[in-house]
Amino acid sequence: MRIATIEVQSSSRVVIVDDAGEHYWDIADLVPGFTGDMLDLIKAVPEPASQLVPNGPGRPLAEARLKAPLGRTDRNLFLVGKNYHEHAKEFSGSGFDSSAQVVPSAPNVFTKPASTIVGPGDDILSHPEVTQQMDYEAELAVIIGKGGRGIRKEDAYAHIWGYTIVNDVTARDLQKLHGQWFMGKSLDTFCPMGPWIVSADAIDPENTRVQCWVNGELRQDANTADLIFDIPTLIATISAGIALRPGDVIVTGTPVGVGIGFKPPKFLKAGDEVRIAIEGIGTIENRVR
Amino acid sequence: MRIATIEVQSSSRVVIVDDAGEHYWDIADLVPGFTGDMLDLIKAVPEPASQLVPNGPGRPLAEARLKAPLGRTDRNLFLVGKNYHEHAKEFSGSGFDSSAQVVPSAPNVFTKPASTIVGPGDDILSHPEVTQQMDYEAELAVIIGKGGRGIRKEDAYAHIWGYTIVNDVTARDLQKLHGQWFMGKSLDTFCPMGPWIVSADAIDPENTRVQCWVNGELRQDANTADLIFDIPTLIATISAGIALRPGDVIVTGTPVGVGIGFKPPKFLKAGDEVRIAIEGIGTIENRVR
Repeated sequence: MRIATIEVQSSSRVVIVDDAGEHYWDIADLVPGFTGDMLDLIKAVPEPASQLVPNGPGRPLAEARLKAPLGRTDRNLFLVGKNYHEHAKEFSGSGFDSSAQVVPSAPNVFTKPASTIVGPGDDILSHPEVTQQMDYEAELAVIIGKGGRGIRKEDAYAHIWGYTIVNDVTARDLQKLHGQWFMGKSLDTFCPMGPWIVSADAIDPENTRVQCWVNGELRQDANTADLIFDIPTLIATISAGIALRPGDVIVTGTPVGVGIGFKPPKFLKAGDEVRIAIEGIGTIENRVR
Repeated sequence: MRIATIEVQSSSRVVIVDDAGEHYWDIADLVPGFTGDMLDLIKAVPEPASQLVPNGPGRPLAEARLKAPLGRTDRNLFLVGKNYHEHAKEFSGSGFDSSAQVVPSAPNVFTKPASTIVGPGDDILSHPEVTQQMDYEAELAVIIGKGGRGIRKEDAYAHIWGYTIVNDVTARDLQKLHGQWFMGKSLDTFCPMGPWIVSADAIDPENTRVQCWVNGELRQDANTADLIFDIPTLIATISAGIALRPGDVIVTGTPVGVGIGFKPPKFLKAGDEVRIAIEGIGTIENRVR
């Protein structure tokens, strides 16, 4: 099941979209009294696949514009760095990595505020006044449904509400300059997300293809089977001391093929189109402005 | 002017507290129609010192319990690492610093979610299942009033709503293990904050004494005049690419004297009392449990 945030006639709505991507059903028509946004829905409906049942013919999606599915969060997104083996080597050898280990001995977790989130088709600002080394990172994002502290690996999947795509846009110069990665990761518009959330039953997150193209050139092409720290490990690690909450987002890391992996590096520039596809979710495309 | 969040008869209120710390005035009585929390007040009242005028005799503060002044934020707190020269050396030489530079060439910014915040007198959980190396860090915290992107240093002070004290509690083993500092900084209860916010006119943030005691032993004693990156630089640096918003918190770094600065290190253990005083603000005390 696909759950999206759309704009129709200048108002935002949370909707179900059919597998063909042609029709939508307003959640407000399916859940009596529901008037909120996606974060409210995650808190109100723990199991979307079984609780949300489309009813009637639906409306044409062509009349709507897709927005970032989860545009508001209660706290910054959790992201994981260097979580694919080949990318860990690529980044460590790039000259931009201020950390010591090539392959991390534990997940390297950092954050991005929700203020960075933009939706499908939205522009990524190039921020020429602060960075000249902008890069893309295609990633599978996990949306937490049921919260909890001390979640065991074997229970982790029961805490997942759904999945979406995130482009973890990064200013490499700032990532290096500021030591900690936060500044290079958190410039306004640096988190394209979408096109929708798929419910947890919709994909096999341990065997899903992740691809990224820049101006039509395939740059990243990997499978989540290659994650160094898999999703249950990430959930168990973070929740060991930080109680997870409904609507938390864990972005799982990017595979080899980012711009700084090339010699010379292929940084993003104004006008570039970045397209990311994840098998079973869909595609998101954004232009650099 | 001191603006606090208190609990009276199981309800939370935002109040003004007098300089003697003896009486309070409910904001709801001073601002017609106001019913929110501190974050709402920051958004609604840009200049508390001139806009909030206590009226009448006030009520006795002894009947109330002080809570963290800003218990809710729209996004994680921004914190700055290694921002006092002597502490930068102390940390780099401690064996716990996974970053390369002794003295940063730009602010090392990381985050803590608001879910870490606790108030005066609240317990700090020791999380023995994930850390055996818990440490304290006394810090001056800046509360942003007027937001903006690209704020110039010379305009920075006009964007400050007030100041408070933060104890940037840190699990040193996790800070090192996870490469990025976030995990070691963000365990639940790892951000004691209080006792109140003082309005921006109340202190000289460039010349304010910061002290920290553990079980009565003075461990940190410094002045904000020694900051490597001063407050206007922090605001200008962060806002260059991240639009600041009302209610954002920037925690400015800790001086020399943290637990890992001693040989052998003096980690916090259950039962320890940590007291922090900042001149012109007040004191906050918390016990480790």
